[in-house]
Amino acid sequence: MEKAMEVELKAKKARIAARKMAVLEENIKNLALESMAEALVKNINKILEANEKDVLEAEKRNVKASLIDRLRLDEKRIKAMAQGLKDIAALKDPVGNIEEMWKRPNGLQIGKMRVPIGVIGIVYESRPNVTADAAGLCLKSGNAVILRGGSDAINSNIAIASILAEAALRSGIPEGAIQLIENTDREEVNRMMKLNGLIDLIIPRGGASLIKNVIENSTVPVIETGVGNCHIFVDETAKFEMAKDIIVNAKVQRPGVCNAVETVLVHKAVAKEFLPIMVRQLSSLGVEVRGCQITKEICPEVKEATDKDWETEYLDLILAVKVVENIEEALEHISKYSTGHSESIITENYENAMRFLKAVDSAAVYVNASTRFTDGGEFGFGAEIGISTQKMHARGPMGLKELTTYKYVILGSGQIRK
Amino acid sequence: MEKAMEVELKAKKARIAARKMAVLEENIKNLALESMAEALVKNINKILEANEKDVLEAEKRNVKASLIDRLRLDEKRIKAMAQGLKDIAALKDPVGNIEEMWKRPNGLQIGKMRVPIGVIGIVYESRPNVTADAAGLCLKSGNAVILRGGSDAINSNIAIASILAEAALRSGIPEGAIQLIENTDREEVNRMMKLNGLIDLIIPRGGASLIKNVIENSTVPVIETGVGNCHIFVDETAKFEMAKDIIVNAKVQRPGVCNAVETVLVHKAVAKEFLPIMVRQLSSLGVEVRGCQITKEICPEVKEATDKDWETEYLDLILAVKVVENIEEALEHISKYSTGHSESIITENYENAMRFLKAVDSAAVYVNASTRFTDGGEFGFGAEIGISTQKMHARGPMGLKELTTYKYVILGSGQIRK
Repeated sequence: MEKAMEVELKAKKARIAARKMAVLEENIKNLALESMAEALVKNINKILEANEKDVLEAEKRNVKASLIDRLRLDEKRIKAMAQGLKDIAALKDPVGNIEEMWKRPNGLQIGKMRVPIGVIGIVYESRPNVTADAAGLCLKSGNAVILRGGSDAINSNIAIASILAEAALRSGIPEGAIQLIENTDREEVNRMMKLNGLIDLIIPRGGASLIKNVIENSTVPVIETGVGNCHIFVDETAKFEMAKDIIVNAKVQRPGVCNAVETVLVHKAVAKEFLPIMVRQLSSLGVEVRGCQITKEICPEVKEATDKDWETEYLDLILAVKVVENIEEALEHISKYSTGHSESIITENYENAMRFLKAVDSAAVYVNASTRFTDGGEFGFGAEIGISTQKMHARGPMGLKELTTYKYVILGSGQIRK
Repeated sequence: MEKAMEVELKAKKARIAARKMAVLEENIKNLALESMAEALVKNINKILEANEKDVLEAEKRNVKASLIDRLRLDEKRIKAMAQGLKDIAALKDPVGNIEEMWKRPNGLQIGKMRVPIGVIGIVYESRPNVTADAAGLCLKSGNAVILRGGSDAINSNIAIASILAEAALRSGIPEGAIQLIENTDREEVNRMMKLNGLIDLIIPRGGASLIKNVIENSTVPVIETGVGNCHIFVDETAKFEMAKDIIVNAKVQRPGVCNAVETVLVHKAVAKEFLPIMVRQLSSLGVEVRGCQITKEICPEVKEATDKDWETEYLDLILAVKVVENIEEALEHISKYSTGHSESIITENYENAMRFLKAVDSAAVYVNASTRFTDGGEFGFGAEIGISTQKMHARGPMGLKELTTYKYVILGSGQIRK
């Protein structure tokens, strides 16, 4: 295959595959997912060998340890990928469901049928498990997928994708349903993002700069994922114990993920009493607290926050804290700095709870719960391809249903328009 | 206002307005729509005066008659705009509806609440009635709107938009909810399409070149509307009378619209008997038929179709006709040439009807009905802002619900993630 034409050729194959995928029965897709899972386990050594090349290469380039950790596979991680595919097989297939059907006065029956989107491009970075997750979710939802992983993981991705594609093909999935772009040049992904008519949707998964590049350059529709500058507002009537537990959970349980809390806003009426309790607990867990002027007056041990802190997604054991006059100021602050991911109010006041739910314009708005629940699994979707922080098509955790669209099916008996 | 900054400044105002719009009660929005309707009628002379300028200007530039007709307003058309706003007031407001709510094992109640999209940009051409329609639909669905009409209708649009914005403001709608961009330079719309963070969605309404420009240049999400190369397939078992009536309706009732049929595919088993009936009727109604080789053999009076005909949206009294071997060839042809708008099968065969519904990947797929029903009013949505031919977010006629998105609202009682 000529290198320069790779993405175009694969997108054309995917387009043809997508048409066949759309009418596949669920049981064929499930069998394929099961045999893809088996194939991963059977080929653990092959995958580990390829992965070893990537890891050595990365070490040679002095890539930082946390990235190498994301990149590195072991038997356990590969088995987890296989289990992920089996879990997807067990989920309900949304394709073909008619969600509503209504009758018009002229007798036309109009229904809304779930159908696959078509060809989905996934642009991602160094985690090779995305290759299996994305292939599985796209397959189950009847979409052809074009995977474009980062150069760091290219050997691992080639190994995984080829094992999956072969197993799928053997199980009756059309050729071209799962394809990986092997050319890791930047121009290749730029060409991919212009293939309107061949690719229906691009989902970027990765850091802020990857996402920004896709949004700015793609003419194919994009679903923006991931960036989460999440807030928790501790209202005047909050139960301190609950507020503290929720904040600790949202910050500490897994600080490196998008639904972790980054800024806590505290009602001034309870700041003096609540802040010392919260800061003590967080400090004991290794969290660096950066506070506004009032926070510093109450807890002199905290660092001073600057304006930059309000807009930072730390993804780390750091928390910004600000004392606010009232719920209005909290809403104002959230509206200014939130990335539209997840925000929570801790309150015992019904009116404020309802007001917060209504006014905050984020994918997930909570009362009295940790922001860490914004997740496909926790929402009951079984799996997710990412968390959308944009407003079009899908918002929040994207499961199988969010990888589909609908079409209208209209049953007539000769109706013509007057 | 400095001209070069117009769209940025208005987008910022719209962003602020959108936040307030999102929490407006329905009755305030309805009162505003009523008073906007009244204001249009009260200011008919002002609008006609502005429109007269546009028409004279267009005539000076020798703009073709059909465009001038679209541009020209009269009392009747203005009253129809006003009635349109009243009709929108009567529709159900989707904002705030919680469509589903489910309980997780940990007791969290998770609901999906309809919310406005935020700030919507409408880019359109010379029909000034779009100004009122789009303003009304966006207002009712809780969105702030930025209107960017064509230079041809600029005086009419300024008059209409300022009347609407004033009436809305007087009724308690926040300032900045309805704004028109007065600078009609091409660069202004190009800047508008890059205002990510300020504008949430752009909907282009107009001809193919306008839509193409928006898709290629917008970094803000876009919903593609309108282009319809629609097909009707006359199957072997079709009732001839029904097939003829549906085809005539789909071609002749209003040929200049996107849901009119452009190509008819006829099963070869009935071509000899059916084509003469169809061609005779169409010819008597002034339709030019362009047929494939076999069609020409059966009806020598028709013109010969070239490959170009299969891909043309005539929007005129012209129809392409092709005889196909079977339903497979029909599906193949549709898959190759359709723009994903509306397709219909005329058949008495249950299996083929189901197959067509499943396999055709268009926004609206019909059995035994005219493609002309693809329309917000005909589907029962009351009104529409356009017909989406893309797959993301909304497909087919877009009513009020399609101008909204959702957020998850989560009611907890202190839940933290394990």
